[in-house]
Amino acid sequence: MAQTYDDGYIYYPGLTAFPATLGHEFAGEIVEVGSKAINKRTSKPYEKGEPVTVEEMVWCGECKPCCDGYPNHCERLQEIGFSIDGAYAEYIAVPAKLCWSLQKLKGKYDNIYKIGSLVEPTSVAYNAVIERGGGIRPGENVVILGAGPIGLAAAKILKTAGAAACIMSEPDENRAALARKMGADYIINPQKENFVDMVKEYTDNEGAALYLEATGLPHIVTDDIQNAIWECKAVNSTVVIVARAEQRMPVCGEFFQVRRARIVGAQA
Amino acid sequence: MAQTYDDGYIYYPGLTAFPATLGHEFAGEIVEVGSKAINKRTSKPYEKGEPVTVEEMVWCGECKPCCDGYPNHCERLQEIGFSIDGAYAEYIAVPAKLCWSLQKLKGKYDNIYKIGSLVEPTSVAYNAVIERGGGIRPGENVVILGAGPIGLAAAKILKTAGAAACIMSEPDENRAALARKMGADYIINPQKENFVDMVKEYTDNEGAALYLEATGLPHIVTDDIQNAIWECKAVNSTVVIVARAEQRMPVCGEFFQVRRARIVGAQA
Amino acid sequence: MAQTYDDGYIYYPGLTAFPATLGHEFAGEIVEVGSKAINKRTSKPYEKGEPVTVEEMVWCGECKPCCDGYPNHCERLQEIGFSIDGAYAEYIAVPAKLCWSLQKLKGKYDNIYKIGSLVEPTSVAYNAVIERGGGIRPGENVVILGAGPIGLAAAKILKTAGAAACIMSEPDENRAALARKMGADYIINPQKENFVDMVKEYTDNEGAALYLEATGLPHIVTDDIQNAIWECKAVNSTVVIVARAEQRMPVCGEFFQVRRARIVGAQA
Amino acid sequence: MAQTYDDGYIYYPGLTAFPATLGHEFAGEIVEVGSKAINKRTSKPYEKGEPVTVEEMVWCGECKPCCDGYPNHCERLQEIGFSIDGAYAEYIAVPAKLCWSLQKLKGKYDNIYKIGSLVEPTSVAYNAVIERGGGIRPGENVVILGAGPIGLAAAKILKTAGAAACIMSEPDENRAALARKMGADYIINPQKENFVDMVKEYTDNEGAALYLEATGLPHIVTDDIQNAIWECKAVNSTVVIVARAEQRMPVCGEFFQVRRARIVGAQA
Repeated sequence: MAQTYDDGYIYYPGLTAFPATLGHEFAGEIVEVGSKAINKRTSKPYEKGEPVTVEEMVWCGECKPCCDGYPNHCERLQEIGFSIDGAYAEYIAVPAKLCWSLQKLKGKYDNIYKIGSLVEPTSVAYNAVIERGGGIRPGENVVILGAGPIGLAAAKILKTAGAAACIMSEPDENRAALARKMGADYIINPQKENFVDMVKEYTDNEGAALYLEATGLPHIVTDDIQNAIWECKAVNSTVVIVARAEQRMPVCGEFFQVRRARIVGAQA
Repeated sequence: MAQTYDDGYIYYPGLTAFPATLGHEFAGEIVEVGSKAINKRTSKPYEKGEPVTVEEMVWCGECKPCCDGYPNHCERLQEIGFSIDGAYAEYIAVPAKLCWSLQKLKGKYDNIYKIGSLVEPTSVAYNAVIERGGGIRPGENVVILGAGPIGLAAAKILKTAGAAACIMSEPDENRAALARKMGADYIINPQKENFVDMVKEYTDNEGAALYLEATGLPHIVTDDIQNAIWECKAVNSTVVIVARAEQRMPVCGEFFQVRRARIVGAQA
Repeated sequence: MAQTYDDGYIYYPGLTAFPATLGHEFAGEIVEVGSKAINKRTSKPYEKGEPVTVEEMVWCGECKPCCDGYPNHCERLQEIGFSIDGAYAEYIAVPAKLCWSLQKLKGKYDNIYKIGSLVEPTSVAYNAVIERGGGIRPGENVVILGAGPIGLAAAKILKTAGAAACIMSEPDENRAALARKMGADYIINPQKENFVDMVKEYTDNEGAALYLEATGLPHIVTDDIQNAIWECKAVNSTVVIVARAEQRMPVCGEFFQVRRARIVGAQA
Repeated sequence: MAQTYDDGYIYYPGLTAFPATLGHEFAGEIVEVGSKAINKRTSKPYEKGEPVTVEEMVWCGECKPCCDGYPNHCERLQEIGFSIDGAYAEYIAVPAKLCWSLQKLKGKYDNIYKIGSLVEPTSVAYNAVIERGGGIRPGENVVILGAGPIGLAAAKILKTAGAAACIMSEPDENRAALARKMGADYIINPQKENFVDMVKEYTDNEGAALYLEATGLPHIVTDDIQNAIWECKAVNSTVVIVARAEQRMPVCGEFFQVRRARIVGAQA
């Protein structure tokens, strides 16, 4: 075991240890099991050989946000690979409660650890568009700004959730090509095309139920988003802010009043 | 009948006519009834003498927002007292579907028409904090910025809904005194006190579940609101924008991400 | 025009007339337009030749449920083909507000009128599983009991919404085959197999987020549903009752308490 | 310390110890603090002398329901005073994460420990009507069946949340008198009066937004509840089942379809 992670709080009896395959987004096979490490899949102790992926956030389970059901807003949050040692090691020990079994993926994918290591960014996107954004009803349109890992995962999730038109705004051609692979129906190049005009065209003036800001450039894209909301017919649009950024968003409240729209922040 | 309101669409058979008492926020007694004017209270035709208040928004009932259940986002909206003739007249004729009986208030108030004429601004506040803002759970704290008619009505509504600490931010002393009468537990004078410090003190650092922007000065108060959210402990705060304003709100997305907060626009 | 439908309330200026193709679930092309008939697609007057489908429920738009946004709970509801004349006629005149354009389907389907006539049963299923049932999050499991028109449409909708395992319970082999075509991943024959055991097997003991009762046999299937909820691990399951039936459901409250579950009724 | 509670899982470092005052619904003053026991009120270590109340449910924080935010559905739940030793002892040691400070109540009540010991039953009622039942909008009506501790607490909570008419159905006169003290506006004696008729009278035929079944006699009261829903005008009523009972509820699905109603189970 190359490194041990022991935050000294409450986890000791629940330690599990397994070889890491990738960065802070990681997955692996369990090679050693603490005496009280319970597998959420089986409700029984973990067994060696179980493939798992691991939450990157180490939540305490004892502060008010944790007790209220918001562990990702833990007051004493540690992050594996950021505030504490990460998974670039032969072995890593983590609390069992952070582990989620990949057993069900066996036989469906060639490399479940590769898939498992994608759970973390996919979960960020899932939390953004499904939990925080409230999801969509099948047949509604969505617009995603930025085809980075989160935006791409969001495209896949929202197409799976039944998005009619999934529109991606992305100037980079390689990323745009990836977006198409992940299910985007239309690509807007915001450096060459008028964003609002294209949203109107692709949605038959209806607009989108959900706009995901995944560019990190809120000072640039906020006007595009709110003008699209304003000029299209849909009410009840949700704007989800998932990318981190220092810049402010110049929000025009009236657009959100008249179009019954809202803005939500999505933590990882 | 001093004036007739006939928008020519679909209302003719449902006309009702009654004397007006106040402005576009009005109430009155029915003196004449169209043959198909149905009273929502009784599910039967209106009878003369029924006291009613009237929605200020004349929604068509046929466009997409109306058919989807959002008549206040009607595409062909007319507003009594604004885009069409108002109630400063001896009599006014309006579609029955806009009328709501005040019969149940009889015997409870001296002047039910005065009460009835307050239904309109109260409904704007109710829609803002209950429908759009999602209401509060009894025991949660609220902060209202601006003790105008909407802010004052919101204070009353939120205290009725069980707000623990109802904090009003208002520099004008007369309005502040009214706010206390309407149920505000604490008054912040933002010109003399530090808004964020006072919110922290009055809520024991917990913060508020709901912040209502009712000043019309978003460029000034947005930072106060989002700094209070950031520095207090509560997650899931909702900021409701009900006042109309041309100025932008300089929104810091990160505060809304980390505190799981959201912004909603509330139409009248 | 073989027949005219005029309920005498408010619709006269909005009349549209077009040839019917099928039963109370119908669609057609507009051949005559009332002077105030507005097309929700364009927000402009209807034009001849527009293909539309029509709501079967004629809601008044003036009673309390209608004004509260629940037209399908209208107190003065009429139903085309039931309480008033239906579409087995060369032409039928209906209020414009009940019409929904099929224009966007042109070029996508060979016979958009056939598709359009399926909108009514599909809408019943959509209302049941998406509006009343609250939909699912992509990746959740669903169980549908009964592969009639509503159950089949629900299977398609829920797969489109990202259902992981879509399980259909249906004894009839022909219907079961149709269910597979509509997206069902697994079929349970409740006359030959143990329903609860099969749900556990197909969901890896997780159970389903949504159970749809579409058999009309609540006295027979209620125990199957609630035992599956009880024996599986999922909390927060929703049982949607869409089929009409006179028989009672013998509900065991404790199962719904311990599993945090709920039952909702879905009107057409 | 008369007894020690050590479930051996994960709590040792967070132990706190304080003298008990009442049964499994208890409160006390902290007399000894484990090295890692954090006070959710201050986000700092507990200090001696802090008054607290304690959750009766000992949730593991590691199983799937706990990790999903539903600790009261913990798969390895222990209950203080039931499955493990309770508070009829001079001292009891409990995990800090189960403790909630009563500090803010000091000065407001004579005996905050008495108040604190009422937190448990009040929380059951709060979870039933606010969390699971979805709360009410101020101005809506409620009906509570059974004026036991849960029903009485629910009356107080729902009046605090702005219930217009709070109707209690209770045959016992002493309990009925208590219900009035807790805020019930009307009492129905179901052994002498017709439940449905009285609900109609007290609500002006509108009915209630929320019905709470707190009698434990579902086979007797289910018909009363669903007949009231059926005969009154309100749509969207919620029936919350909080009392435990072995008997079945003879649910008539059609009533819940036509009135857009639902039934939810509420765990403690």
